[in-house]
Amino acid sequence: MAIRTGRYTLMLPTKPSIHGSAAVVGQTEAQGPLGKEFDYAYSDDTIDGCPSWEKAESALQRDAVTRAIEKAGLTPQDIDLIMAGDLLDQCIGTSFGIKELKMPFLGLYGACSTMALSMALASVLVDAKAADNAVASTSSHFASAERQFRLPLEYGGQKPPSAQRTATAAGAAVISSHKKSTPSVEAVIFGKITDLGIKDANNMGAAMAPAAAGTIAEFLNDTNTKPQDYDLILTGDLGKVGTELLLELLVKDNNIDISSVHGDCGLMIYDLEGQDVHAGGSGCGCSGSVVNSYIMKRLQSRELNKVLFVGTGALLSPTSTMQGESIPSIAHGVLLTSGD
Amino acid sequence: MAIRTGRYTLMLPTKPSIHGSAAVVGQTEAQGPLGKEFDYAYSDDTIDGCPSWEKAESALQRDAVTRAIEKAGLTPQDIDLIMAGDLLDQCIGTSFGIKELKMPFLGLYGACSTMALSMALASVLVDAKAADNAVASTSSHFASAERQFRLPLEYGGQKPPSAQRTATAAGAAVISSHKKSTPSVEAVIFGKITDLGIKDANNMGAAMAPAAAGTIAEFLNDTNTKPQDYDLILTGDLGKVGTELLLELLVKDNNIDISSVHGDCGLMIYDLEGQDVHAGGSGCGCSGSVVNSYIMKRLQSRELNKVLFVGTGALLSPTSTMQGESIPSIAHGVLLTSGD
Repeated sequence: MAIRTGRYTLMLPTKPSIHGSAAVVGQTEAQGPLGKEFDYAYSDDTIDGCPSWEKAESALQRDAVTRAIEKAGLTPQDIDLIMAGDLLDQCIGTSFGIKELKMPFLGLYGACSTMALSMALASVLVDAKAADNAVASTSSHFASAERQFRLPLEYGGQKPPSAQRTATAAGAAVISSHKKSTPSVEAVIFGKITDLGIKDANNMGAAMAPAAAGTIAEFLNDTNTKPQDYDLILTGDLGKVGTELLLELLVKDNNIDISSVHGDCGLMIYDLEGQDVHAGGSGCGCSGSVVNSYIMKRLQSRELNKVLFVGTGALLSPTSTMQGESIPSIAHGVLLTSGD
Repeated sequence: MAIRTGRYTLMLPTKPSIHGSAAVVGQTEAQGPLGKEFDYAYSDDTIDGCPSWEKAESALQRDAVTRAIEKAGLTPQDIDLIMAGDLLDQCIGTSFGIKELKMPFLGLYGACSTMALSMALASVLVDAKAADNAVASTSSHFASAERQFRLPLEYGGQKPPSAQRTATAAGAAVISSHKKSTPSVEAVIFGKITDLGIKDANNMGAAMAPAAAGTIAEFLNDTNTKPQDYDLILTGDLGKVGTELLLELLVKDNNIDISSVHGDCGLMIYDLEGQDVHAGGSGCGCSGSVVNSYIMKRLQSRELNKVLFVGTGALLSPTSTMQGESIPSIAHGVLLTSGD
């Protein structure tokens, strides 16, 4: 049963275990520095010939979920709850992706923070015995996101350097109450919406950085820990601009310097010099795929022992942007450890 | 800590209490049979002059949340978690509605099942001590939903008789671990996505009925109870067409007759004869407002003692409909009792 520590952090005494995790990606992600880490890379962003980008995204998420369940040695019938979401309107990437698997489903909307949100919630529910086996999953697709949030690819729209590339990727984890010597979730923190008034939808890293800074500062404060107590403090997808701002904000507002232990999934998934990805990766699948492959493997091998994963999300819509609104953002945190 | 009963149902031994609930509505809802039950009715659907329908929806949800917290004798600072969502793309009704209240936020997407989903999840998290005070909330707005899912009102589009009217309404409940002689949540069930292939977005009641039937049958089976054990089995917003289908399906597939105890928020919120609402009400705010006013009051006065509230949601998007896809649906259940 969760133990509230400080104002916002929940410690999970049963330390739910991650029994299986999987990440599947598209072409550009496979060509990036983590290409060999993923479970599968599709050679074509139609994901084996799906007739629309939305269906391709659904296929991607279904594949990640199916692989994670298999790797946990389970079947969909063994899953008590799946919590998942994505960026598409009404989260159709998720609902059409997982509907055939017939698992009790809790739909989430956390924009690019969805992997952290779903992992945090799944862990709390497993710790509370509301589920023995829970799946956390998410997806994003470059082409479905471009069409929905900006312009269809065929328009050939140009982007400023601050823009990030939505990753074509999906990630899933099976979190279980049965103890195993696997990566575990020891604590979680649910963030508050933060809105400092940034309105540029081509600079979401900057919009999300304050939310990440707030959640990181609160988690360290609640748990009475320092950045040096972690092997890695990993943000979801702030990219280049947002990362710089995060490091600055934490020093300025909280006198916390995380620069020596900080990593960002949006900077890890692509080669910013060699690939045409502007300020780095974004999208739910960015942290979804990096955490459920590269990070989980390093926790399993104990190269990493203590990772604070903070997923960030920009809670905007094209409508709110067109109405001149600012970008409310959120960040949720999950403390991943290499297990007992 | 939740106790799994049968395959899908979670009994909540601490019986989390509903300390405050509120419902605010627009004009048409105020003119309906439950008009006097709501906490506040706006005389104009702009909700005191908001410059867009989306902002009006946000204002509506903020009002319901603020009132529920006040009625619980609390302030937003006392809230450990709010879980909420709505129908708008990227759930902006919610994020822009609640951002200033600065509560840890767990974003949900359950379409019109959101009130049941958020109440169920909040109750499990309170039962698990992950929150002492949690808010469950949702909203919908006739004009923002029409613009997004169908056509802007200015087009003057016509609807078939099977279509439902999205309620301009918001509802919120504060669920707490502190015992009080108030309505309580004794059990919850999270549903599975059901898709029988219905493709008519003007007949969502029919699309959602099979999901409701599945969840009701599973809950009764898991808890070894009969329809007569409940004062009311209340579906979210199946409307006229969906209700008929639900009653039929339960008899045909499960040999369960709930007709003597069944009610539907979509049929209760409007006068189907006297108001131009086609097959009844729909939208997250429909069950959100009916449950958090009329139903809660009857539980408080013990006119009702045991209500199984099953919220239903159609997980479609305009994109999936335009691509010729069917409508995946879901239903989540909450067992509300009049408390000890």
